[in-house]
Amino acid sequence: MVYKKITMIGTSEESFEAATDAAIDRAEETLNEVTWATAENLGVDIGDTGEREYQVEVEIAFELDE
Amino acid sequence: MVYKKITMIGTSEESFEAATDAAIDRAEETLNEVTWATAENLGVDIGDTGEREYQVEVEIAFELDE
Amino acid sequence: MVYKKITMIGTSEESFEAATDAAIDRAEETLNEVTWATAENLGVDIGDTGEREYQVEVEIAFELDE
Amino acid sequence: MVYKKITMIGTSEESFEAATDAAIDRAEETLNEVTWATAENLGVDIGDTGEREYQVEVEIAFELDE
Amino acid sequence: MVYKKITMIGTSEESFEAATDAAIDRAEETLNEVTWATAENLGVDIGDTGEREYQVEVEIAFELDE
Amino acid sequence: MVYKKITMIGTSEESFEAATDAAIDRAEETLNEVTWATAENLGVDIGDTGEREYQVEVEIAFELDE
Amino acid sequence: MVYKKITMIGTSEESFEAATDAAIDRAEETLNEVTWATAENLGVDIGDTGEREYQVEVEIAFELDE
Amino acid sequence: MVYKKITMIGTSEESFEAATDAAIDRAEETLNEVTWATAENLGVDIGDTGEREYQVEVEIAFELDE
Amino acid sequence: MVYKKITMIGTSEESFEAATDAAIDRAEETLNEVTWATAENLGVDIGDTGEREYQVEVEIAFELDE
Amino acid sequence: MVYKKITMIGTSEESFEAATDAAIDRAEETLNEVTWATAENLGVDIGDTGEREYQVEVEIAFELDE
Amino acid sequence: MVYKKITMIGTSEESFEAATDAAIDRAEETLNEVTWATAENLGVDIGDTGEREYQVEVEIAFELDE
Amino acid sequence: MVYKKITMIGTSEESFEAATDAAIDRAEETLNEVTWATAENLGVDIGDTGEREYQVEVEIAFELDE
Repeated sequence: MVYKKITMIGTSEESFEAATDAAIDRAEETLNEVTWATAENLGVDIGDTGEREYQVEVEIAFELDE
Repeated sequence: MVYKKITMIGTSEESFEAATDAAIDRAEETLNEVTWATAENLGVDIGDTGEREYQVEVEIAFELDE
Repeated sequence: MVYKKITMIGTSEESFEAATDAAIDRAEETLNEVTWATAENLGVDIGDTGEREYQVEVEIAFELDE
Repeated sequence: MVYKKITMIGTSEESFEAATDAAIDRAEETLNEVTWATAENLGVDIGDTGEREYQVEVEIAFELDE
Repeated sequence: MVYKKITMIGTSEESFEAATDAAIDRAEETLNEVTWATAENLGVDIGDTGEREYQVEVEIAFELDE
Repeated sequence: MVYKKITMIGTSEESFEAATDAAIDRAEETLNEVTWATAENLGVDIGDTGEREYQVEVEIAFELDE
Repeated sequence: MVYKKITMIGTSEESFEAATDAAIDRAEETLNEVTWATAENLGVDIGDTGEREYQVEVEIAFELDE
Repeated sequence: MVYKKITMIGTSEESFEAATDAAIDRAEETLNEVTWATAENLGVDIGDTGEREYQVEVEIAFELDE
Repeated sequence: MVYKKITMIGTSEESFEAATDAAIDRAEETLNEVTWATAENLGVDIGDTGEREYQVEVEIAFELDE
Repeated sequence: MVYKKITMIGTSEESFEAATDAAIDRAEETLNEVTWATAENLGVDIGDTGEREYQVEVEIAFELDE
Repeated sequence: MVYKKITMIGTSEESFEAATDAAIDRAEETLNEVTWATAENLGVDIGDTGEREYQVEVEIAFELDE
Repeated sequence: MVYKKITMIGTSEESFEAATDAAIDRAEETLNEVTWATAENLGVDIGDTGEREYQVEVEIAFELDE
């Protein structure tokens, strides 16, 4: 069995979890067998008018077909 | 005063906080004087049917009796 | 353009997000042009009567006036 | 010359080398000019009946066509 | 909004900047919305006849289409 | 579900794998549900008469009973 | 003798050196006895129309008056 | 031979060495064959009335009986 | 409650502790509520005539007034 | 007693252990009292015709004569 | 084949590249088969009259004769 | 100006400072222009009869003759 890892950055105005999920959701649109993810970097982007967006860099592992 | 540190991994389908608390709750079942914890690694386990579980590796410090 | 970074530690009894926001809120009381923050260390302080407080060390970047 | 790096996780019941090679073998199925790999994380997965599988996270560099 | 990160290694006989730009240039050949890059590892390859080539490992972030 | 992690150092005159397995074997003598291990530090001890012993620091995760 | 360290982020369209110097220049506008700086993180910001700006996070040490 | 590692935090009002020794002393109360320790994190706790206490996080390795 | 962290470098010809204390002493000249410090980097400066000075980079946390 | 540490990179077409040993063997050709080594970076070089060579960066400690 | 790595610090008033090259140049004065170098730490020394010198800590690998 | 760095491990039954100085002393026996040292790893070796020896891994920088 061989897995591959990709790195995505999810964003959300709600929470770090929602930002993490947004990244996994997007990966699952094109990938099967997503098995594990790690939240590597947590941050907050602050826009010109002060609005805040949680951002999480997520490493996502998925199984490769044999 | 001497403290000891142990490493637990809490899990939750709700949030990283709930996963962190689950680890501290479990430690407090057998330990007194738990004073401080750090969330070292945040991850998400994705089951075969796509269900997600937040996981947090928590280092927990507690006071040792004299 | 030159930015400066300061390090604050926000606390909250609710969540890691609320602790992160508390640090950014406080920085914005005295600083303009806060643009970006990173959550470096997540922890939980446990008081003498077991009450828990989420703590997040936040590095906050802001633009310096020309 | 520009190279690209991808991250694979190879597995083997034999050894860390075999797990590393499994990841490189798989990459070479679809990539030419694979030139260098680094074994970043070594682990062992332990199944429900105690069977052990060596796992190695391998960063693989390959030349991009001009 | 979700971003993806890839890792490229640019090379140049001129400078670390030129090597970094070579990696970003190549990414922009196939990607839109490249927004940010970080120079992670700086090195120098020394050939058999002593010629030197600056190499930079560059992590490149780009926006994914909705 | 809550897991606990302990750190053992296995040794072997044969290989890094054998040293890693020695640590997991010893943990399994007293623990059920050992699920995952990571090989953190690889070393070689060289005795007074030059004999060599491979040593691996292994972090071992196991499930705690409910 | 006691020193203090602050963190600035310099930017330049020319080079990593120019970005580093921009941060030190700005610090020297308000500080005496700046003695040492380290370039911690090198990056490139890519604007909406593809223009690139080198950015360097610089830790700057300066002597405090007795 | 298999070793185990535990993490203790020693404290002292005298020095980092005394804090390190306090942790090793406490481990030796219940453990035989303590062979090696590393001082991972050095800190100073400052009480409400300004009194200072040196703290050292010490990883302690000891031989397990066959 | 929100804390702020600053980085100072203390020096002493006596010991690492004295260098750490010199940094905290200086911070306490202008700050109230200094609560915690960590000794991040330990070094020795060697002057032209061989005289040695212990240097410690100290991160100092203090409470901000509400 | 004072020790010195040097860094060697051993190579082998067989295994990471053989590559580690190659580095220690070479050090022992010119050094007495080699006591300990750590395998810091594990990699695989892939030649033009696909042949693979395991490489290990080994830090080697040895006692200095009084 | 066995390689050795040494650490040099190059300096230049021109650029990080020139400082890196200065270190490699000096190594090549006494070593053959220098094959690869990595720029580990980039800094700027600021003299008493404000003159600046770029400094780069360079790890240099070279082949050892059989 | 080019500097070189070597790594020594000093030992002492007295203190971390004495162990650090032992390493620098030994380097100065054969090297001129030793300018700076950093204490990278602090540890304690515990002998068979419980005697303790402080050990410090010290990176030592010295100026190379032109």
